[in-house]
Amino acid sequence: MNGQTVTVADHVRVGLLGCGNVGAALARLVDEHADLITARAGARVEIIRVAVRDLAKPRELKLPSTAFTDDPTSVVADPDIDVVVEVMGGVEPARGLIEAALRAGKPVVTANKELIARDGPELLRIAAASGVDLLFEASVAGGIPLMRPLRESLAGDRIRRVLGIVNGTTNFILTRMTEDGTTFADALGEAQRLGYAEADPTADVEGFDAASKAAIIATIAFGAPIGPDDVYREGITQVTADDIASARSLGYIVKLLAVAEEVGGDVAVRVHPAMVPVQHPLASVRDSFNAVFIEADAVGELMLYGRGAGGNPTASAVMGDLVDASRNLVAGARGATIGELVAKPIRPMADAESPFYIMVEAADRPGVLAAIATTFGDHGVSIKSMEQRGIGADARLVFITHRAREADLTATLDALRHVDVVTRVGSVIRVVGEED
Amino acid sequence: MNGQTVTVADHVRVGLLGCGNVGAALARLVDEHADLITARAGARVEIIRVAVRDLAKPRELKLPSTAFTDDPTSVVADPDIDVVVEVMGGVEPARGLIEAALRAGKPVVTANKELIARDGPELLRIAAASGVDLLFEASVAGGIPLMRPLRESLAGDRIRRVLGIVNGTTNFILTRMTEDGTTFADALGEAQRLGYAEADPTADVEGFDAASKAAIIATIAFGAPIGPDDVYREGITQVTADDIASARSLGYIVKLLAVAEEVGGDVAVRVHPAMVPVQHPLASVRDSFNAVFIEADAVGELMLYGRGAGGNPTASAVMGDLVDASRNLVAGARGATIGELVAKPIRPMADAESPFYIMVEAADRPGVLAAIATTFGDHGVSIKSMEQRGIGADARLVFITHRAREADLTATLDALRHVDVVTRVGSVIRVVGEED
Repeated sequence: MNGQTVTVADHVRVGLLGCGNVGAALARLVDEHADLITARAGARVEIIRVAVRDLAKPRELKLPSTAFTDDPTSVVADPDIDVVVEVMGGVEPARGLIEAALRAGKPVVTANKELIARDGPELLRIAAASGVDLLFEASVAGGIPLMRPLRESLAGDRIRRVLGIVNGTTNFILTRMTEDGTTFADALGEAQRLGYAEADPTADVEGFDAASKAAIIATIAFGAPIGPDDVYREGITQVTADDIASARSLGYIVKLLAVAEEVGGDVAVRVHPAMVPVQHPLASVRDSFNAVFIEADAVGELMLYGRGAGGNPTASAVMGDLVDASRNLVAGARGATIGELVAKPIRPMADAESPFYIMVEAADRPGVLAAIATTFGDHGVSIKSMEQRGIGADARLVFITHRAREADLTATLDALRHVDVVTRVGSVIRVVGEED
Repeated sequence: MNGQTVTVADHVRVGLLGCGNVGAALARLVDEHADLITARAGARVEIIRVAVRDLAKPRELKLPSTAFTDDPTSVVADPDIDVVVEVMGGVEPARGLIEAALRAGKPVVTANKELIARDGPELLRIAAASGVDLLFEASVAGGIPLMRPLRESLAGDRIRRVLGIVNGTTNFILTRMTEDGTTFADALGEAQRLGYAEADPTADVEGFDAASKAAIIATIAFGAPIGPDDVYREGITQVTADDIASARSLGYIVKLLAVAEEVGGDVAVRVHPAMVPVQHPLASVRDSFNAVFIEADAVGELMLYGRGAGGNPTASAVMGDLVDASRNLVAGARGATIGELVAKPIRPMADAESPFYIMVEAADRPGVLAAIATTFGDHGVSIKSMEQRGIGADARLVFITHRAREADLTATLDALRHVDVVTRVGSVIRVVGEED
C-alpha cells in the first residue's frame, strides 16, 4: 500500500461543444433527470457553457444567453469547465479541441465516430498521459452499451470475435428488401423519405460508416490501434432482391456485418454483406436497429441490441459517459481504461476464411456440374451444398462452400469465368455465424 | 472544490469464498488472463486464500495447499485480504460473511442471486455506510452485462420497463415444446438429462428463480428496495403444447417473462408465462439463453442477450466486477452506486394491465358467441380478436383481449364458468411486448 493525495470536486461543470440533435437532447436529459444524475454521479452535473455554430438560432435550452458562444476554444480553455462534451462531429476542429481539453487535464466525452475511428488511439494516449478519462460510448451503435461492456464487463475475458450490425440505414434497406421483396433502389428511396438515409447515401450503403465503427470496436476489443484503413470494406449496392430471396430459401438472412476477430495473434477487420443463419440472434435484428454479437472465451456468446442512432438514444449514451466521468472526477480517480494499446499485425483479406454463397449461371446440359465442381476442387474450395434451377436454356446453380480462404475463392471465381459452359458468375456472399 | 486524502493500493489480494464451478472458473481466469487483468485493474489481482467446504477434495487451482481453509470467517477477517468474492451460494453463512467484510471496509463481489434478492437493499446500505463496493453482476442473467448498464450506461435515463427471460431451464423447456411440439413433461425430462434442470425442478418451473432475479432487476432499475415477496409469480407447469401451438398460429411465442415496470410512481413486478409477438426480439431467444429487454425514456429499446448460467459465463461476470472493485480500490474510489434506495408503493397484481389470450370450450350452437361476448363486455373487457374451431360437438374459442385489468379479467373468467353453454375455461396467458 502507498499513500497519495487526490483532489475531489463536489460539483461538475460541463462545457458542451455542439448543440444539434444530440446536444439538445443531452441538455434536456441533464435538466429533467438532475436528481437521478446527482445521486449517481455523487455531484451536481450542470452544463454551464455551450459552443454553437450559429448564435442567432433560437434554442430551447434552459440556459442564459451568456452561456452560449460561437468560440469552442474559449469553452475548452475556460478554467470553470471541469468536463468537455463534444457532439459537434467531424474531424476538425473537434480533434484539436479534444486534444486541448485532455492536455489541460479535463475529461472528455465524445460521440464522434469519425474522429475516434481515425485518431482514437492517439487521443487515448494523450488522455492516459494526462490521467483523465476519454469516453466515447456513443460513437458506436448509438444508445447500445458496448464500449463499457467491452472495457469493463469483459475485462477478465478474452474476446475472439465481434459481429456487428452497426449501420441502421443499411439494415433498414436490407430488411425492406427481405420482408417486402423490394429492390435496393426502392428500399433506399423509402429510407431517404423516412429520413434514415441521406441524400448522398454513400457513407452508409458503401460501408464507410460501418468501417469506422468496426475500427473502434476492434481497437477496444483487442487493445490494438486499428484505423479505418485497416478495415476491408464492401457495401450493399450489389446485393439484389434475387440474392436475398435465394438466401432465404436456403435458411439465411442477408445483413451488412462488421466483423472483427483475433486469429493467431493477428487482427482481422472487415465490413461486407453476409448471409446469417435464420436462427442466429443477429438474423432477427430488423429495421434500423443495431446489434453487436460478441464471442469470448469465458462468457461465450453475448448480444447487445438497440437503437444505433437518433438524438435521444445517442444522448443517453453520452449521458452515461458524462455520469461516469463526473463520478471519477468527484472521486479523484480515472475510470476503466483498456490499458496501453499494442500494435498487432493486420491479417490481409486474402487470408480471411469463411464459407461462401456463390451463384453461377451455366448451360443446362449434362457434364456442366462436373466441369464446375472440378474448378472448385482444383483451387482447394470444397462444396457443401448445391441447388440447381432451370432458367430457360440455362441453369442457375447456387453453391454453399465449406470454409475457404478468400484468395482461393477469388482464384476459383476467375477460373470459373473461363469455363466455357459458364455463362455468368453472379453474386458471391460470405456466410457468417455458422460453424462449418 | 474541496480536498481529501485517500489511500491507494498497488496490488489487490482476493479472498475467495466457495470453490465450485464458478470459483474454479474464476481462479482459472485470474491465472490465464493475469496481464490483461493487471492492465485493466491498474494492479496485480491475485487470489491468495480460498474457503472450501471439503479440504480433502483435490483441486486443480495453482495455489499452495496453505491457501485453502474450511473456515470462511478467517478469510474475511484476514488483514491481508483486500477484496472478498463470494460464490458459495445460499443465504447463510454467505450473508454474515459479506456483512462482516463490508463492515471491515472490504469490497465484496458476489454471484449470490438468492441472497441479493432477499437482502440486497440492506447489504447495499451497509456497503454505502462503509464506503465500499458491493457488486453482483453475476447474480442475474449469468454472463450478461446487466447491472452495469442499468447502473452506469443508463445513469442519466429513466427506465420504464424491463422484460426478462432470466431462467435458462424454462426457456429451454418452452423452446423444445415450441419447436418440437413435445409436452411439458417430455421437455422437462430432456432438460434434466442434459443437466439444465435439477432432479427437483420446482425453483425453475414454478418461477421462484426468475422471481428472485426480477426482484434484483427492479431494485436496481427503479432504485427501490424490492424483495421476492413483492413479485407476483406463476410458473410454466400449466402451459400445454396446445397453448403453444395455438399461440404460434396467432403469431406469438410463449416465454416465461420477468416483468418489472414503474407505473405512475408505483413499481409492479411479476413473473408469468407470456405470449410475445414473433417479431419481438425476445421471441428469438432460444434454448437456455437469457435476455433482458429494457424500455427507457431516452435510449428507447435495448436488449442484452447471452448465457444466463454456467461456470464460465458466471465467472466472466464475477471477473468484470472484481476488476471494477480492484480498480476502485487502487484509485481509492468507489464505483457507480445506484444512490440511496427509496421505498416505492408496490402495485397489486389485481391492478396490473395487459392484453390476454383466453381459451374457452363451449357448445357448438348458435348464440354461444353472443353469450360469451356479453360476459366479457359486462366486466369491461374488450375483445380484440377471436378464432373458433370445432372439436366434436363442442367449439373451441380463442380470444385475444385488448388491454385489461387483472381484476376485471378474473371476474370475467369467474362469470364465464357460470355461463351454461361454456363447458370449460382453458388456458389464460398474458400478452406482452405488443402495443394495444
